[in-house]
Amino acid sequence: MAGRSFACREKRSEINRMEIDQSTIDAVLAGNRRILARAITLVESTRADHREKAVQLIDAVAQSNRAALRIGLSGTPGVGKSTFTESFGMMLVEQGLKVAVLAVDPSSKRSGGSILGDKTRMDRLSRHANAFIRPSPSSAALGGVARRTREAIALCEAAGFDIVLVETVGVGQSEVMVADMTDLFLLLLAPAGGDELQGVKRGIMEIADLILINKADGELKSQAMRTCADYAGALRLLRKREQDPKEFPKAMTVSALEEDGLDQVWSEIETLMGWRREHGHFDANRKRQSEVWFEDEVRRGVLAQLEQDETLQNLQEKLRKQVANGALSPDGAAAEVLRVLKTLK
Amino acid sequence: MAGRSFACREKRSEINRMEIDQSTIDAVLAGNRRILARAITLVESTRADHREKAVQLIDAVAQSNRAALRIGLSGTPGVGKSTFTESFGMMLVEQGLKVAVLAVDPSSKRSGGSILGDKTRMDRLSRHANAFIRPSPSSAALGGVARRTREAIALCEAAGFDIVLVETVGVGQSEVMVADMTDLFLLLLAPAGGDELQGVKRGIMEIADLILINKADGELKSQAMRTCADYAGALRLLRKREQDPKEFPKAMTVSALEEDGLDQVWSEIETLMGWRREHGHFDANRKRQSEVWFEDEVRRGVLAQLEQDETLQNLQEKLRKQVANGALSPDGAAAEVLRVLKTLK
Repeated sequence: MAGRSFACREKRSEINRMEIDQSTIDAVLAGNRRILARAITLVESTRADHREKAVQLIDAVAQSNRAALRIGLSGTPGVGKSTFTESFGMMLVEQGLKVAVLAVDPSSKRSGGSILGDKTRMDRLSRHANAFIRPSPSSAALGGVARRTREAIALCEAAGFDIVLVETVGVGQSEVMVADMTDLFLLLLAPAGGDELQGVKRGIMEIADLILINKADGELKSQAMRTCADYAGALRLLRKREQDPKEFPKAMTVSALEEDGLDQVWSEIETLMGWRREHGHFDANRKRQSEVWFEDEVRRGVLAQLEQDETLQNLQEKLRKQVANGALSPDGAAAEVLRVLKTLK
Repeated sequence: MAGRSFACREKRSEINRMEIDQSTIDAVLAGNRRILARAITLVESTRADHREKAVQLIDAVAQSNRAALRIGLSGTPGVGKSTFTESFGMMLVEQGLKVAVLAVDPSSKRSGGSILGDKTRMDRLSRHANAFIRPSPSSAALGGVARRTREAIALCEAAGFDIVLVETVGVGQSEVMVADMTDLFLLLLAPAGGDELQGVKRGIMEIADLILINKADGELKSQAMRTCADYAGALRLLRKREQDPKEFPKAMTVSALEEDGLDQVWSEIETLMGWRREHGHFDANRKRQSEVWFEDEVRRGVLAQLEQDETLQNLQEKLRKQVANGALSPDGAAAEVLRVLKTLK
């Protein structure tokens, strides 16, 4: 019942009115989903005043020092990602865990995102009191997606979710991005002939901690098991990860439809995460990710300042024309902008 | 004889001593290969004083307004790229054209580049008075590769070469980069079974103007023709390019070894380039590429200024630690850097 409104995208006017005061901060920390949803809309906005509020909010809630387990999930369309998320998420919430699902789709150009699709396909989970589903917003550049996903994860963590599942489509670059902001990465695959194995890029195999062959049910069951064996073989050929137990990365079969094998997936996740925590790799990875995030934000901010400076923008516009008609070399024109930038300092 | 020294990489000490005066500029414009080679070493350097000289030189020679035909060439290792470049290049120089070959290999980590390999494999071309071969230097990031390749192209153009052939290995991103700084793009492929066709990424097919199935000789000839037909079929499925004649992009067979089909390749290139020049697409593309180059350089320069500022570097070092131990959010820390950056202005 209450769940219905969580996935709804807040209107711009609501975030315009949003104040980052103690009551807003407390509402996020208390897990108020309406405010959380609004806060995520805020971090998705690129408007300068919204950005300022977003940073203020992120910074304030970071003090809570709550940490969810961040799980990345990828798979090509049709592999059953939504069904898996629904089944796996339901299993977790029924264990009393609070689960947030964030969808990342850098290729999405639909305004309003894929909310109807996600809601329909995750019907039970989206209604559950312990779950929060956030569909992917209509998209900008991958860089923008990275920022708002990191920030949405931080907000969900602060709101007290135990698990933040970040789901993305299989388009290569977005998977690497998601792997770089999560604690472990699940790759969901469909049963396939052995010769299709090469269709999965080596780079994606290398970031996966668990490869799950879905649809291990009905007629596809034996094919799924063969595919699983193929991937298990392929994983053995990859360079070993020194920081992990030798049985990882691992390939397993699951049936999201029949809810079969999901508890084993969770058990493997707990084993791997337990090991990484114990050996310090979990924290080391988080630290590294935070530093990368910080450096990204500095670079992004510096470039944004450049774009906001009217003198520089006018100068660039003038020089761009001279470059286009060949009167100036691109290098020379760029050097001129940088000279002027220095005098402005 | 004279050709031998052109491909040799100049020592750092020589570019340290290099003065960007009128005699250097004149030497580049006169096509003096020793000075051209040294100039390319200069643009490959990332040292601040070298950069300054590089920009000065690029800017000065840009005034010549000479324009070579820039051809991008890609293909996976073993497909016969060097043999093709040698044969195709020899055909062109024997027609009286001056040909420069630049190799781009973002994956190369070898210090000194692949000079011996390239020289051995392009023996005739490297000795020809109308040819200049520049092997790929040991590599940095792809961004750095883009800059120095663009600048090396500009230097070769100013030096009076009619054709600049930019050769890259098939690693995906580097092909897109090379296509973005050339006038047309050749994709060299080996004869293959029809089911291997999918191994060529759609994105790469989309940037190719001509797909050349090499090794159409001896036992492989009929297989090459079948592969060519397969690719011709695949090309028909791609979205048509409105700006090109309807028969492009096109698939053809060649034999670099037997020097067969090379004149047809050149004839197709001339047809396509003639059409694009006539319809204004050639110039429009060049303009767009120059603008992108300019914007890239501005962004790169702004970020470099950030890295050179000691106050900001110290501040970032301090904040990075606070981010790593969780005392500050990455967002908050970045905002602090940007606040300080503004006060420095």
